[in-house]
Amino acid sequence: MNEIAMRHRDTLDKAIAATESRAFWSAFPEDPREYPEEAAAEGRAAFDARCGRRFELDQPGSAGWAGEERSPYGFDLGVEYPVPDPDVLLPAMAAAMPSWRDAGPEVRAAVCVEIVRRLNSRTHEMAHAVMHTTGQAFTMAFQAGGTHAQDRALEAIAYALAAMRRVPAQATWEKPQGKRPPLRMIKEFRVVPRGIGLVIGCATFPTWNGYPGLFASLATGNAVLVKPSRRAVLPLALTVAVARETLVDAGFDPNLVALAVDAPAERSAASLAVRPEIRLIDFTGSTEFGDWLERHATQATVFAEKSGVNSVVIDSTDDFDGMLRNLAFSLSLYSGQMCTTPQNLLVPRDGIETESGHRSFDEVADGLARAIDGLLGDPRRAAALLGGIVSDDVLKRVDAVAGSARVVLASHPVDVADFPDAVTRTPLLVQVGPADDEYARECFGPVSFLVPTSGVEESLDIWSRTMRERGALTASVYSTDPRVLARAEAIAMEGGVSLSENLTGGVYVNQSAAFSDYHATGLNPAATASYTDDAFVTPRFHVVQWRRHLPAEAPTT
Amino acid sequence: MNEIAMRHRDTLDKAIAATESRAFWSAFPEDPREYPEEAAAEGRAAFDARCGRRFELDQPGSAGWAGEERSPYGFDLGVEYPVPDPDVLLPAMAAAMPSWRDAGPEVRAAVCVEIVRRLNSRTHEMAHAVMHTTGQAFTMAFQAGGTHAQDRALEAIAYALAAMRRVPAQATWEKPQGKRPPLRMIKEFRVVPRGIGLVIGCATFPTWNGYPGLFASLATGNAVLVKPSRRAVLPLALTVAVARETLVDAGFDPNLVALAVDAPAERSAASLAVRPEIRLIDFTGSTEFGDWLERHATQATVFAEKSGVNSVVIDSTDDFDGMLRNLAFSLSLYSGQMCTTPQNLLVPRDGIETESGHRSFDEVADGLARAIDGLLGDPRRAAALLGGIVSDDVLKRVDAVAGSARVVLASHPVDVADFPDAVTRTPLLVQVGPADDEYARECFGPVSFLVPTSGVEESLDIWSRTMRERGALTASVYSTDPRVLARAEAIAMEGGVSLSENLTGGVYVNQSAAFSDYHATGLNPAATASYTDDAFVTPRFHVVQWRRHLPAEAPTT
Repeated sequence: MNEIAMRHRDTLDKAIAATESRAFWSAFPEDPREYPEEAAAEGRAAFDARCGRRFELDQPGSAGWAGEERSPYGFDLGVEYPVPDPDVLLPAMAAAMPSWRDAGPEVRAAVCVEIVRRLNSRTHEMAHAVMHTTGQAFTMAFQAGGTHAQDRALEAIAYALAAMRRVPAQATWEKPQGKRPPLRMIKEFRVVPRGIGLVIGCATFPTWNGYPGLFASLATGNAVLVKPSRRAVLPLALTVAVARETLVDAGFDPNLVALAVDAPAERSAASLAVRPEIRLIDFTGSTEFGDWLERHATQATVFAEKSGVNSVVIDSTDDFDGMLRNLAFSLSLYSGQMCTTPQNLLVPRDGIETESGHRSFDEVADGLARAIDGLLGDPRRAAALLGGIVSDDVLKRVDAVAGSARVVLASHPVDVADFPDAVTRTPLLVQVGPADDEYARECFGPVSFLVPTSGVEESLDIWSRTMRERGALTASVYSTDPRVLARAEAIAMEGGVSLSENLTGGVYVNQSAAFSDYHATGLNPAATASYTDDAFVTPRFHVVQWRRHLPAEAPTT
Repeated sequence: MNEIAMRHRDTLDKAIAATESRAFWSAFPEDPREYPEEAAAEGRAAFDARCGRRFELDQPGSAGWAGEERSPYGFDLGVEYPVPDPDVLLPAMAAAMPSWRDAGPEVRAAVCVEIVRRLNSRTHEMAHAVMHTTGQAFTMAFQAGGTHAQDRALEAIAYALAAMRRVPAQATWEKPQGKRPPLRMIKEFRVVPRGIGLVIGCATFPTWNGYPGLFASLATGNAVLVKPSRRAVLPLALTVAVARETLVDAGFDPNLVALAVDAPAERSAASLAVRPEIRLIDFTGSTEFGDWLERHATQATVFAEKSGVNSVVIDSTDDFDGMLRNLAFSLSLYSGQMCTTPQNLLVPRDGIETESGHRSFDEVADGLARAIDGLLGDPRRAAALLGGIVSDDVLKRVDAVAGSARVVLASHPVDVADFPDAVTRTPLLVQVGPADDEYARECFGPVSFLVPTSGVEESLDIWSRTMRERGALTASVYSTDPRVLARAEAIAMEGGVSLSENLTGGVYVNQSAAFSDYHATGLNPAATASYTDDAFVTPRFHVVQWRRHLPAEAPTT
């Protein structure tokens, strides 16, 4: 084993052990203050130096420059990226693969870990890049866009390496032949990649959702073309730059990882996705385009995370205030722009039982509104939780719902220090009527629906139906009744969703921890894959063997 | 662990160990004489009793009877099977799944092993069923259709169980919070099946090619609908009957496994394949229909084995006669009706070097023709090797090639004792001219092309090109030059094919041993999947989790 494999062996062993136990593990401190003192200023300076300039990547076949990112905090980034000619770039990427394949699983996994370690050393810079493309507040951008994304990368590398290690390099095969000498063969097995992987990034979590596919494909020997959302290029461009630099330092062709930015007014994801060179696609985005990919990019295996409708079933609780605080945080974090944010709150119209007696539907609704107001009362804290709004579409959606429904809590902007032009919104909470079906579709952004039901049975039914029809990435249930919890677990299994029970403390339904929480299942319309299980990595490579006779020996038995 | 899981634990442990080492292992004796003395007569009688009758399966929604099988040995089987109404059968199958899912991986795997053990005890009956549908000679039907298929089933079960065991049932997650108490959660994980699997069987190896998908889907919790080729229903009907009986005996719903026979003049595979209930498809058959499935059955994951063009590159040898004997056997076995039979023999037109000096192209061609003649000289032995011709299409293809090319060795029928109407053919060997491109397409059946090349470089190029364009399941190279072998191994990796080197003894290129040889790779057009790797089993299930807080404790560090 060579130097780089030795260097990262301990990290990989620990990461693989974590995937086996799914207990808590993280390779990287999530608190910005645990990084070197100068890291914050350097990261900020590095981000500032990127703005208003061309981002050089030295990729083959670059044909012009493009970039149109605008920070939700109110300024244009002014960064331009090379637009590739796929007829030049893809062959160069394919040519880079044989030596990467021949380096073998251990070296490839170690080089991938080295990329992630270098990304970690630049987490402050990445945090600014994520903040000013997605709108996430700085601390969240540091964690979800930085260290947690790096953990998801390590998790994918660990699953990939463990899967490749299960293929023996060699076997001696000896078949008994009765009294005659046995047939003996030596067989060699090699892990062979599928081709070029295409990672289609999203605007809200470009790294957290992009890294699993990127590193799963790369570690298994494939080259990877990263196609970012036009709104969030910089975090993935930084990632590609770090990957290319690391590959060169490790003696490999940088074209194993490349960036594909759209030319102005062009949308290249669909045309790239159906090219014969592309054999793997990792997509995060709309159900519409995800379904299109599954139907049309049939030359590739598609791993897709699409939209969904997440529900909270509220039946009863022994910690009413804890429940409301927890929900208020979940609805406020990043202004509800997470694929894991709850949208529908299903509450019996006759109210619920709590540790301090019965609470009516209105008391639950008003309590939640007050909890959100309390959480966001301090503008500084509000800004640090909410972040900015990623796109005009989200704003329009909030306004449309606010004008057409019974508002329990209105949505409003908050002031963000240093960023007077930041676009922000607090959560909008509306009560739906019996005939409304608005809540049955995804309404991405800071909008939640309080749905009065005839009781917990109807709540469970509505949850189950929306999940089956629209998909869901998370679900949450509050109940002190073990039978209700058991019913909810059964529905979660049938609907294929990750369920959180009675969250009243410091864990929130929209959080999914690498190495422990499976993110999405592949069982409902919200996704075809999961971060991370074996099915996410094993279709990315195949095994080729060769065999030849060994001289016969006397039977060993 | 319950009784059935205990009973089969040793078999499963050994099977999993074999998948890890890929050394020789087999659970079942392949020699018919190693079975109880009465087994041969009982198996024959059981087969005879099936003929001319309805095959009762007691499936829900049976709507009429159909069956049109004719033995290549010259008689109609006269067996009729229930034609299902999928609108009744599929819901019944779906309803059978929850309790099968909840039984858990260990019990499911053990019940699957029990099915395979019961199939093994009926191998003589199965051998007659395979013989008189596919045309395989009895011994081959016993092995390839019986014990080797049972081994492939066990292999799939072993891979599935090992993959499911990697998902922990429970984890305690404890995240440090500095000086505050850690966040603590308990998480539970469940393996959840995808839905109903559809196995579309082929006419030549209904069990060997059908069992991997059937048992991989079943062991991972899915129900499985088996749609046989109209020419080879009986082997899979027997399999379904044994599976249903075993499931009932183990306390499960028999509708977890069902048979779907076409109504007369109907072809139901395509309409079944696109139904939303079908989430997994295992297909063996034509490239045309396989490609159709991949493009249209996008609601399902498709595991397909299609057609291909297998090549032998002959460069040099130190055992000329051994090479010819080995090739003669490979071309004769089951009259070349194996997806693994070599089709193109690439030989330098200037001849090759051997241990006894130079041999011209014509000497190689004539030597091979003589080796085939020698092998098949005794009619009894010829019949036992060749078996019967599976369909008129194969006969027509042989006749068409025989009339249009330079024949090196003519194809002719042989007499089969006890079966005067058997349809048989010996291998046809033709030399192609420089302008012919006939050899570049699959010509399924007892037809091989001797292709004169300008030298080993051109041989390797032609092999590589046909494999890239048409796919290949096997490849073979004869060379005493280590550089040529290394080139061949590199081309095998690029082309994604299993390579056999210098086979001159008792192993043949068309043989693929369960637990050791990967059958197909998924890397070239001949297949999208492999028997068996992790990618064959892991997409058949997903993981659902639920989590809840544990009371905080003092940090343990």
